[in-house]
Amino acid sequence: MERWQERVQAKRHAALEKIPIDWRLPKGFLQSIKALESESTDLIALNAIRRSGLLSSSELEITENYTASQLVKKLASGSFSAEAVTRAFSKRAAIAEQLTSCLTETFFDQAIERARFLDDYLQREGRVVGPLHGLPISVKDSYNIKGVPSTIGYVSFLDNELPETNSTLIDVLLQLGAVLYVKTNIPQSMMVADSENNIFGRTLNPLRTSMTAGGSTGGEGALIALRGSLIGVGTDIGGSIRVPALCCGLYGFRPTTGRVPYGGIVHHGLPGHPGILATAGPLTTSLTDTELFLTSVISAKPWKYDSTTHAIPWLPVGGNVAFSPLRIGVLAEDPKWPLHPPVRRAIHDAISLLKDAGHSIIQLSHDVKISASTGLDLSLQYFSLDDSNTFLRHIEKGGEPPINALKVLGLDKPSTNHSKCTIQDLAALDLKRVGYGDAWSKQILDLNLDIIIGPGAQNTAVPHDSYGLFPYTVMWNLLDYPASIIPFSRVSKEADPEPLVFEAPAQGPPYDPEILDGLPCAIQIIAPRFHDEKCLAISKVVDSILNGKR
Amino acid sequence: MERWQERVQAKRHAALEKIPIDWRLPKGFLQSIKALESESTDLIALNAIRRSGLLSSSELEITENYTASQLVKKLASGSFSAEAVTRAFSKRAAIAEQLTSCLTETFFDQAIERARFLDDYLQREGRVVGPLHGLPISVKDSYNIKGVPSTIGYVSFLDNELPETNSTLIDVLLQLGAVLYVKTNIPQSMMVADSENNIFGRTLNPLRTSMTAGGSTGGEGALIALRGSLIGVGTDIGGSIRVPALCCGLYGFRPTTGRVPYGGIVHHGLPGHPGILATAGPLTTSLTDTELFLTSVISAKPWKYDSTTHAIPWLPVGGNVAFSPLRIGVLAEDPKWPLHPPVRRAIHDAISLLKDAGHSIIQLSHDVKISASTGLDLSLQYFSLDDSNTFLRHIEKGGEPPINALKVLGLDKPSTNHSKCTIQDLAALDLKRVGYGDAWSKQILDLNLDIIIGPGAQNTAVPHDSYGLFPYTVMWNLLDYPASIIPFSRVSKEADPEPLVFEAPAQGPPYDPEILDGLPCAIQIIAPRFHDEKCLAISKVVDSILNGKR
Repeated sequence: MERWQERVQAKRHAALEKIPIDWRLPKGFLQSIKALESESTDLIALNAIRRSGLLSSSELEITENYTASQLVKKLASGSFSAEAVTRAFSKRAAIAEQLTSCLTETFFDQAIERARFLDDYLQREGRVVGPLHGLPISVKDSYNIKGVPSTIGYVSFLDNELPETNSTLIDVLLQLGAVLYVKTNIPQSMMVADSENNIFGRTLNPLRTSMTAGGSTGGEGALIALRGSLIGVGTDIGGSIRVPALCCGLYGFRPTTGRVPYGGIVHHGLPGHPGILATAGPLTTSLTDTELFLTSVISAKPWKYDSTTHAIPWLPVGGNVAFSPLRIGVLAEDPKWPLHPPVRRAIHDAISLLKDAGHSIIQLSHDVKISASTGLDLSLQYFSLDDSNTFLRHIEKGGEPPINALKVLGLDKPSTNHSKCTIQDLAALDLKRVGYGDAWSKQILDLNLDIIIGPGAQNTAVPHDSYGLFPYTVMWNLLDYPASIIPFSRVSKEADPEPLVFEAPAQGPPYDPEILDGLPCAIQIIAPRFHDEKCLAISKVVDSILNGKR
Repeated sequence: MERWQERVQAKRHAALEKIPIDWRLPKGFLQSIKALESESTDLIALNAIRRSGLLSSSELEITENYTASQLVKKLASGSFSAEAVTRAFSKRAAIAEQLTSCLTETFFDQAIERARFLDDYLQREGRVVGPLHGLPISVKDSYNIKGVPSTIGYVSFLDNELPETNSTLIDVLLQLGAVLYVKTNIPQSMMVADSENNIFGRTLNPLRTSMTAGGSTGGEGALIALRGSLIGVGTDIGGSIRVPALCCGLYGFRPTTGRVPYGGIVHHGLPGHPGILATAGPLTTSLTDTELFLTSVISAKPWKYDSTTHAIPWLPVGGNVAFSPLRIGVLAEDPKWPLHPPVRRAIHDAISLLKDAGHSIIQLSHDVKISASTGLDLSLQYFSLDDSNTFLRHIEKGGEPPINALKVLGLDKPSTNHSKCTIQDLAALDLKRVGYGDAWSKQILDLNLDIIIGPGAQNTAVPHDSYGLFPYTVMWNLLDYPASIIPFSRVSKEADPEPLVFEAPAQGPPYDPEILDGLPCAIQIIAPRFHDEKCLAISKVVDSILNGKR
């Protein structure tokens, strides 16, 4: 056993030790229900968490029957104690971890202590600490929490000092009354859609364990799908909130950069890397909870604590959005990045329903000036503007091998394409980005669009290490447009019986109706930069048309 | 005569030809009133424009007795025609140009044609085109206007094709009903505070012709001081709106970047240069007019036309600002950048008046983490991140010599300090910038400040080519804080009789009470990033305390 493996083993052992004995799955349970990477097991349909027998009926009640928005009301009224809610979600998260490797760090004891403080506060003061009083919120491993490691899956980061300060968002969540209890799993490098690393292993998709849960916020995807959390915080520089959302049948919201604080987060690559900025945002099981998160965080005026956060209040959209006919532009499918038939069908069906509801549908033409592939090309140029190959050095330093998903994309070795990394190159790229943004502005203006609808990806969740690139998410990062994933429709081998295999494997993962049958599809709703309020308001309109009252 | 000189002579001849004969100053007039760079002539006190005898009494009435805000009301009611107003300001601007070289391009004929269209529109439709209906607005030469050259003072740019599209702000101003009639002078390179170039000559300060009018929006400074315009649009990357404002006794407002559209402006250096972004904003004779400009431009939703403009409406500050006691932080004088005694006195007197009015004054400590010199150092590192020395190449290409102000600052030759221009350097610099921003956020939060007051510069207007660097303006560009210059107090050789000469000339221009006596001083009001509305609202409160009802 190599030195790095010994260290990882010790780390994993310590992590397991932190899970109370009566929260641990019975020996052989995983095998018995086939909760394995090699099996196509649906942990949700199997009711794996209930079946474990570890949760009491009140814990099942708390974790299964409410949205976060409903829970905070019950917490505020004292119907549920923060301690009971925290204990229920902690336990459920611990089980989810054992089923899918969705967590990195747990701190259940501190969480329960915090919950007791909140319960005392409510009793003593007769009021809540804030709008998230007593609500457990999970966060991606890259958030710094005082005294909790932030390895983000790099073995070399096991040597880092423990954080002495919280990321800004962590402070804000605490100020709002939230309870922090777990951090969640990510891919080594954070650059791929498979949340695997050599410290915490590979996150499995609870809907089908042979499939990726997406990335880089994949741990949240699995955890929330299993209702081990109702609001999870991710970050998104190319799709890292939206990809796990669409892989796991959840809602994911990528705000405009600067709306939700991003300060004090651990960098996977070159700190301060210019170009496309990452943004923080929620994964949830409902848009009401997305709204709860965004309005609460922004109401805390986070810009006071973080100079990179914009001082822009949440401005409610006029009440007529729900009742006026919308002008909805449909993103053109990019011939370089063809959609899986069920994804195409989901968009098509969504459009029909929106039309039936009285909205105007405007099909956009494929045009290289605004295409997904142009967006992807520019984005990849930005991401490659680091000839010091920071993330590879982080991997090498730990003595660990690169994960398979990096190898598949050829990201496990220094790019040979790194000759151009000067300020002039960056400036030239910035001008192209402005050109792409102006072309999109013109498109939206000329067609008088309220919103854009499109796919979140070519595909649904796919087998591990086959996800590929992310043209339909990263283009909105390049534009810095807020974008929302709404689960809608499912893969059906009856409706779409023909397999699809691309000539070049780099064009995307194949569509195999037998393997993917039943997995959730999704649509993406996109609004212009800074129109986060509109993006959310219209997402809610669209969601209620597509999914009824969920 | 060299080739470049011949070209410039032809250009100047053509420019003069565009001024109608009966708008030209009598031969010998400049000599007679000593409107010369070598003389300390006060063109305002001399009443040079009236004295020229070229303006009719109604033209004097229109140009001298109203703010822009009052004029737009008169225009909207039909009391003044757009044609009369345009003709009056055009003529006055033409005279100002002959007195101070404040203009670059003039297009009076098109302006009058436009004014007639507006008059017809008002009569026909019974309503105005927009809130700036019929108001002449002057713009810095770097704005593109269809068919009008944008040389920005580079001889080599005389070869450029004429612009085929307008800068976004130009389109927006036209949509709002404004009349465009002149573009204004700037320094060669735009990097210095002396608005001199080899095409259009040197802008003189109308308050004292031996002094700089400031830069880089120096032409606006001189033009507005002579009331050849009431609202002039500048750009500011290090102080280029605020420096001419403080040199010419005007109001200058630097908004947060992205609030006022910056799209389609001619770059003086490397297009797309990352780091500190320039921003557009107004110079005016009153804050009411500043407000008219900002609210009008933002009400036009300029973000629809320009992907780099932020979709943030103008959000009126709660009505209590004018009546609540404010917590006003006083920027510490930086020992590396000592203030001229009258500037220090202006701040001191302003503080006394604000205190008397019931506001809380909190003196900030000098601290390297938030100091002006730290801000300047980081800013200069950003500005030097161009090892292609774009602006020097623009100068060289035209065969012209660099202007003297560039030589004085050692900017006329490629920097020897350019070895570090990589993406890594930029990323490291960005992190330092965030650190500086976070330190400022903490300061503001810890002291619960509403606003900051400080100097706009070490000095007032100073003799040509001696202005030096700009620590007290550029620090707010680095932070991207909105900042407002308010004229207040004057140099007095009686109150501050002692001269001040710095040991190192690079520490700033000397204070000579005899030479500078009587020139306007100014204060700067600064609010955190995106608090433009608050910056303006509090500037108005402060202005009314310091200057009464102007």
